Amino acid sequence: MALVTERVSLFLNINILHKLLLVISLMFFQGSVVMAEDNEQQIVRLSRLEIAPEKLELYKAALKEEIEASIRLEPGVLTLYAVFEKRAPNKLTILEIYKHRQAYESHIKTPHFLKYKAGTLEMVVNLELIDADPLIPDLKIK
Amino acid sequence: MALVTERVSLFLNINILHKLLLVISLMFFQGSVVMAEDNEQQIVRLSRLEIAPEKLELYKAALKEEIEASIRLEPGVLTLYAVFEKRAPNKLTILEIYKHRQAYESHIKTPHFLKYKAGTLEMVVNLELIDADPLIPDLKIK
Repeated sequence: MALVTERVSLFLNINILHKLLLVISLMFFQGSVVMAEDNEQQIVRLSRLEIAPEKLELYKAALKEEIEASIRLEPGVLTLYAVFEKRAPNKLTILEIYKHRQAYESHIKTPHFLKYKAGTLEMVVNLELIDADPLIPDLKIK
Repeated sequence: MALVTERVSLFLNINILHKLLLVISLMFFQGSVVMAEDNEQQIVRLSRLEIAPEKLELYKAALKEEIEASIRLEPGVLTLYAVFEKRAPNKLTILEIYKHRQAYESHIKTPHFLKYKAGTLEMVVNLELIDADPLIPDLKIK
């Protein structure tokens, strides 16, 4: 009888150990899923800028060059759609969409972005960065 | 000899007439191309809205329904990309792109737009419409 109890107790211990391992692995698994989701989530931002009026044409050329390079060279830059207000042509808004955080982080280290940033620093009078949530994340431009 | 001269002269006259007709038709053709371009020019607008916070979820549902219907049913509605500010979730901006003026004019007469407009009138605290010029008109969202 003592032997049976010992065996049952050993069996229970192994069972508990298995369950513990299962719980631990599930925790790790869940953690990595959450991390993957975080990394896959689009980054959406509105940049609102005001440009020194006398520098506007130079600024537009620099921005166009930067956007075209980003779209061509970076698969993770989904759009940088820039619009200038008709009534205040030196004010613009850029709808920026990145595939995920990593795509944004690598974008701001590219030579074309750094060139644009340094080259337009003196032209930008005001800059507002607005993090945003899209209503329909998979919406495109036809 | 006189007959030959007459024939040559007749030939020249016909030739001049042909050229004249060609010039006139080219002028008409060019005119219609310019008109087509005018009508083909995209309409781009930013709508900035502020929603009564207690109505936000109802508003989002109404806007989503309206955008999905517009994109599905109207080839001339190129996008209605709506983003809500993370720091002020009741403030949103919609990047609206229409293929041409006619597409915009017909959009605001559709049953789905009129339903959205009437249904959300009391939810919208502030609305600003900003006509804009895109920097790169043929840019898309990847």
